[in-house]
Formats: sequence, structure tokens, C-alpha cells
Amino acid sequence: MAELNGNLLVAQSGGPTSVINASIAGVITEAGRNDGIENILGGLNGILGILNEELVDLGDERAKTIEGLKNTPAAALGTCRYKINFDKKPEQAARDMDRLFQVFEAHNVRYFFYAGGNDSQDTAHKIHLQAIKRGYEMRVMGVPKTIDNDLPCTDHCPGYGSVVKYNATTVMEVGLDVGSMATDDGSCCIIEVMGRAAGWIAAGTVLAKQGNPAAAPHIILVPEILLDEAKFLAQVKATVAAYKYCVVVAGEGVKNLAGEEIGADKTRLDAFGHPVLSGAADALAQIVQGKLNLKTRTVKLGYAQRAAAHFASQTDIDEAFQCGVIAVREAVNGKSGFMPKIVRQSSKPYKTTIELENLENIANVEHFVPRDWIDADGFLPNEKFVEYVAPLIVGEPKLPIVGGLPHYVTLNRVPVDKLLAPR
Amino acid sequence: MAELNGNLLVAQSGGPTSVINASIAGVITEAGRNDGIENILGGLNGILGILNEELVDLGDERAKTIEGLKNTPAAALGTCRYKINFDKKPEQAARDMDRLFQVFEAHNVRYFFYAGGNDSQDTAHKIHLQAIKRGYEMRVMGVPKTIDNDLPCTDHCPGYGSVVKYNATTVMEVGLDVGSMATDDGSCCIIEVMGRAAGWIAAGTVLAKQGNPAAAPHIILVPEILLDEAKFLAQVKATVAAYKYCVVVAGEGVKNLAGEEIGADKTRLDAFGHPVLSGAADALAQIVQGKLNLKTRTVKLGYAQRAAAHFASQTDIDEAFQCGVIAVREAVNGKSGFMPKIVRQSSKPYKTTIELENLENIANVEHFVPRDWIDADGFLPNEKFVEYVAPLIVGEPKLPIVGGLPHYVTLNRVPVDKLLAPR
Repeated sequence: MAELNGNLLVAQSGGPTSVINASIAGVITEAGRNDGIENILGGLNGILGILNEELVDLGDERAKTIEGLKNTPAAALGTCRYKINFDKKPEQAARDMDRLFQVFEAHNVRYFFYAGGNDSQDTAHKIHLQAIKRGYEMRVMGVPKTIDNDLPCTDHCPGYGSVVKYNATTVMEVGLDVGSMATDDGSCCIIEVMGRAAGWIAAGTVLAKQGNPAAAPHIILVPEILLDEAKFLAQVKATVAAYKYCVVVAGEGVKNLAGEEIGADKTRLDAFGHPVLSGAADALAQIVQGKLNLKTRTVKLGYAQRAAAHFASQTDIDEAFQCGVIAVREAVNGKSGFMPKIVRQSSKPYKTTIELENLENIANVEHFVPRDWIDADGFLPNEKFVEYVAPLIVGEPKLPIVGGLPHYVTLNRVPVDKLLAPR
Repeated sequence: MAELNGNLLVAQSGGPTSVINASIAGVITEAGRNDGIENILGGLNGILGILNEELVDLGDERAKTIEGLKNTPAAALGTCRYKINFDKKPEQAARDMDRLFQVFEAHNVRYFFYAGGNDSQDTAHKIHLQAIKRGYEMRVMGVPKTIDNDLPCTDHCPGYGSVVKYNATTVMEVGLDVGSMATDDGSCCIIEVMGRAAGWIAAGTVLAKQGNPAAAPHIILVPEILLDEAKFLAQVKATVAAYKYCVVVAGEGVKNLAGEEIGADKTRLDAFGHPVLSGAADALAQIVQGKLNLKTRTVKLGYAQRAAAHFASQTDIDEAFQCGVIAVREAVNGKSGFMPKIVRQSSKPYKTTIELENLENIANVEHFVPRDWIDADGFLPNEKFVEYVAPLIVGEPKLPIVGGLPHYVTLNRVPVDKLLAPR
């Protein structure tokens, strides 16, 4: 493959994670090692900022800041949920694509990296196809990122190990707390975690049990398995009878037997037209408190879980960084239209390789928890799941702490001069 | 004061904290150094377990376990919210007191330590007075514990520094996350923290700002200042206009101008007859989303915040331990009816001493955030508050981690033979 000289542009998209900046650090670090890459540019707020030609010069950032990105949560370049939708808004999509390539051309962008989940990989794939169609020589790579862990083809997604580590720790801590308050009256605590369609995040909290049936969580509800209210209440009752308390972890997208999300407020829709969920735990608490007359409290971790870099997984950070490195390395080698994926070679000892997957196999495909990784009654993941998830949370980063709080970095965001008229 | 030989009994009461076990470790460690103290007993689930003669032999625990208590959240001995209420249930209270002293006498308890908040210090005080009245020689000490930080006389309470450290970190992380998603549409995130009557916990999250007006949290609502909805909405609007996003921290007991808790579900009461609060954040989100048409998400940390030993404050752990040590030391020296309190000698450098306060000055008195520690508009604590709270979160414990999760200890709870007929 011929050498391709020019600038590199990297941007972030979708919901942030604790380690999405580690991937950006990987991209920047590896790009700096390649002479063919002239300037390293960042696009602010994903596609949205690129459409507005809001680019920054990442080559101007201090090495210390790039190193600090490995431990800094959220999207350092800003992110967006903007979708180029050829199906629903074909004219807008065509205009957006034209504008994107005007920006790429104006800034001689020959390498484009987009870190994100399903929707973002779809965007990267479309840009790759358009580059070919337009005869614009540019290498496009998706960089995997999602706490939801629902990308296909890859063993798991950067961002997932850290959310599981933090959530499992939280469930363990809350379990000790609630258990220590348990007296004869019994009590229930319902912890709501993220996961709209896939139950990976909820299921991962099984690690808090550490193999102890008496320990929290006692019940894990995943969106893949429809909730049978009567069986659920019977399970809560049996757990309280045995241990005097019951800790339930619920994925936000848990559905009833009719297939309706129990926590959905259907009057609110997000940018992709999905209903905004907020109340799975509260809905369950109402059921438990109402039907079992059991003192019930809720915890809703919300954004805290995907931003908890103070207790991230070092394994996750390393893999996220490495995905960024490999994306650049393979692009320089001539690849385009791919995403680095993590391939597990063995669980004990944990060993992975990073390989490439064609973006068209990833875009818009969701990957769910296999049914046979969850017990027959549907209330707890089994040892297959534990073997899968346990290695992903290993390792603690050496986080710089100042005055008792984590020291997170921010980019200087030195703007690149705009060369185009505003759209 | 004459030497007093006999057994020591320690128990925990009220809501747990990240460091209440550190106080118990302090009691056990110091008790082990005193020859006059024969056996070190633990009462399970506070007064409730003592009434049932559920005692365990803490002298039988391994030294490693006692050391591990310093980093283990929740109440290792179990806790309760049982109140000996002479006002409302005088006959039951009299029976309870008789039974308690039967248990004390049967087990030759001559030192009694009760770790807890306002209600628990009241219980300790009553037991102290009863011991005098009954001519039963026993030294009674309260050990301060409450994340709420609402005990009077002491500079702050063990448990408070750790909840502030974790919550401020969480608010900082959520702030970065929400800020990185901020685009022109604007967004709001409301984080609900504990604090029914006093706003200490909510106010403490001001540390996440690190002096940066643009950083989260942008608004902190404390129960001490009635919420003027119109002014609040104007402040949210102004913040979104300036930064495109707004992070609000709300104490669970925030009240409207009529003095009603906005998140109270008045149909549910706890053991002390207070209404159970669960929805301040959701109530505020409804107001913001409804009146400003602003995308609004909520986080409810609930029990997670008071159990987050994985990111506790070492200053807090040390002080909690030391309060346990001093309680024993002073009791052995002949004191009874006191609680160790923390007296601040200076903030920079942070220097404290531990002194004794008479329990009658502490029982049932609540301590609130001074009005002049909060800005005139009532939306952010000022530099006086920051100077007060900043030193309390300093220092990170070296937490033992196994397989990526904190290693917390559990007591063996070797039962002491019952000597009385069941009550």
C-alpha cells in the first residue's frame, strides 16, 4: 500500500466512558511516531463539531496532558449524539456528507478516527464508503468504545471493564451496608445500572458475590429476559426469608412480560428516537414495597458509573489505549474501514490479541448476553459469565490525587484556523 | 477514680458509614491494651441485639480482621434504628432498660460503648443516667458517627470526610461527563445526596469545583435554605446559557418555600416517625424539564455514598479510629457519660485534638450549616465552607484489592453463651 501523507483527525462520539480518552491518547501517541502523519487534529463534539469546522491542534498539547488522558473520564474532545441518517433524512445526510468532505479536504485530513459505539461505528463506516465513492484518499478507522459492551465481533468493548469494576464494588459496598442494617423486618435495595437493550453491565455486578450465595447481589435483572413479576416477588421473598435482606440489580431497560420497559417514560425520546428511561429501580421498588410490604430503597448510579475513573480497571485502560494505537498503526499500513477488536486467547491466564474487523459487520449490530450464561431461573449469571467478566476488572491505575480528589486533565483545545465559510 | 475491672461491650447504631468500623477497631485495639478490661464483647445490631442477649466475643477475632475493619464499610456488628422512647412508649422503655441492665449484669459489662449519631448518643446518655440511678457501676461512652455531620459540639463527625470525598469525586466525574456531552441544546443533571435536615453532605461537594466557576457543581441546594423555584430556574437557565450545561447537587431534604420537603413521600415513615424521602432529584428534574424544556437526568447515590470505602478519606479513618481509642482510654481513666469530640486547632495546617463532651449536650441536638458559609443567593457554599471542609478529605487508604475488587473483612461473630431466659 502506498504511503499516505497528510493530517490525522480524531473525534469522539456517543456516551462517554472512563477510558475513551485512553483510546484518544493511544491514537495521539502512535500518530506522533509516524512521519507520514503531519498534524494531529481533534474534532470537537464529534461529527457535529467537524461539520462546524471546530478543530483543535492536538500536537500542541503537552505530553503530560496526553499521559493524563489515560486516567481522565468523559470525552476530552467533547462528544455528540448526532447521526447522519440517510434513511430518515436523506437530504440533510447528503448535505452533511458534502460538508464533512469539504472540511476533510480543506484540512488535508487523510486519516480519520472515530471513537464510539454502534451508532458511531455506523457513521465511520458511511464516511469510509463515501471516501471511496468520492475518490478522496483517506483511511477511516472506528475505535471501539461503549460501557454497554454491545458491539458484535469483539470479545468485549473498552469502557466495559471499568464500569463493571466500579458497579460491582458499589454493589458489594451497598450489600454490606444493607446487610448490616438487616433486622427481622427485612429490607430490599434496588440498584439501577445502565444498559438499555443488553444486560452486560447489570450481569457484571455478579462479581460482587465472589461466589458467596449469601452476598449481594441476590437478583440481577437483565433486559434480555422478560420480567415475570410473580416469580420475581417470590425470589425477593425467599431471599429475605434466608438473609433478612435482598439486593437487586436492575438494568435500566428491564422489560415486563409484555415486552414493555418498566421504567420507560414514553413521552421523552432521545436524538435517535429511543424512549428515555429513568425509572426501572423506582418502578421495581413500587412493586416490592406495594406487594410485599417490604422496606425498599433505591440507588440510581446514572452517569456516575460511566465516569468513575477514580476506580477504573487498569486492564480496561490498557486495552483502550492499545485499540487507539493499533487503529493508527493499521491505517498507516494502508487499512481503512475497520475497527480494532479484542480477541480473547484464554481466560486463565487472561490473554488477548487485537485484530481488525470490517466496520460493515459492526455498524448497528447489537450483541446480547447469551442465554446460557444466565441461570435457568433468569435471576443470576452463572460461572460461564463469571469466567468471561472476571479478568476485565483486574488492576488499579495509579491515579494522581491532589488534596484528596483525583487530578483529571483538560485539553488546551488550541483552535485550528477555519478555512471554510460557516455552513 | 478507682480501677474498674470487668468486660467491655461495644455496639453500633443508626445508618452505617465508611468508617464506623474504624471506630470499633479503635475501641478493640485500645481495650486490648488495658488489663482491667477482661473480655471484649460485641453487641449485634445495637441495642436490639443486646436486648436479645446476642453478644459475640471480639477477643476471638484475628488481629488481621481488626486491622481490616479500618477499611471495611457498613456496620461489622450489625446496626439498628431501635429507640428507647420514654416519652412515647414509657412502659416499653422501662422494660427495655431493665432488660439491658440484666444483660449488662449477667455478662459483667462494666464498659459500654455505643457508636452512632444523634439518636444513638441519646440512647447512650440514657443508659449512663440509668447506671447511676441503679447504682450499677459502668462507664458509658458515646462514639461519634454520622455522615450527616449534624452532631453539635464536635468540629465534624467521623464518616463525614469520607462521604464528602466520594461525593465530590463523583460530582467532578459526572460534571466532566455531562460537560463533554454539552452541545447547543443544553442539559442539566441533578445529583441527589443524603442529608435530611442538614446540608453538610450536599455543601461538601463544592470541593469538586476546585475554585473554578465553570466547573460542576453549579448549584447546591441544602435543606437549611428554602427553595425559591423561580430563582432556582433562573439560575439553571443562566448556567446553561454560560456553560451549556448545569450540574445541580440536592440534599434529599430540600424544602420548598412552604417548608415542605419536595421529595417526601409522606405515606412512608421510618422507625423514628420521620417521612421517608426518596425523590428530591426526580422532583427537581420534573420542574427543570417541565418549565425550561431542558434535557435533565438524575443520579441518586443513596446507600452507595455512605458505604464507598473504596475511596474513603484517610484523615477520616484515622480520626474515627482515634475516637474509639480515646473513648476507651478516658473510660478506663474513670470518665462516663461523654463522647469524644474533634476540636480543630487550625485549618492550615490541619490540626485537631480529641476532647470529651458531655452526652447531655449532644443527645438530640442537630447542628446546621451556618448561613454565612453559603453565598448570599443561597446556591453555593463560600470560601469559609471550603476552608472548613477541604482538609477532611485528604489522604487515600491503601486498600487491599483482590481480583480487582476491594477486600473487606467480616467478623467471625463467635457467640457468647446466653445466660438469661429469652425476653
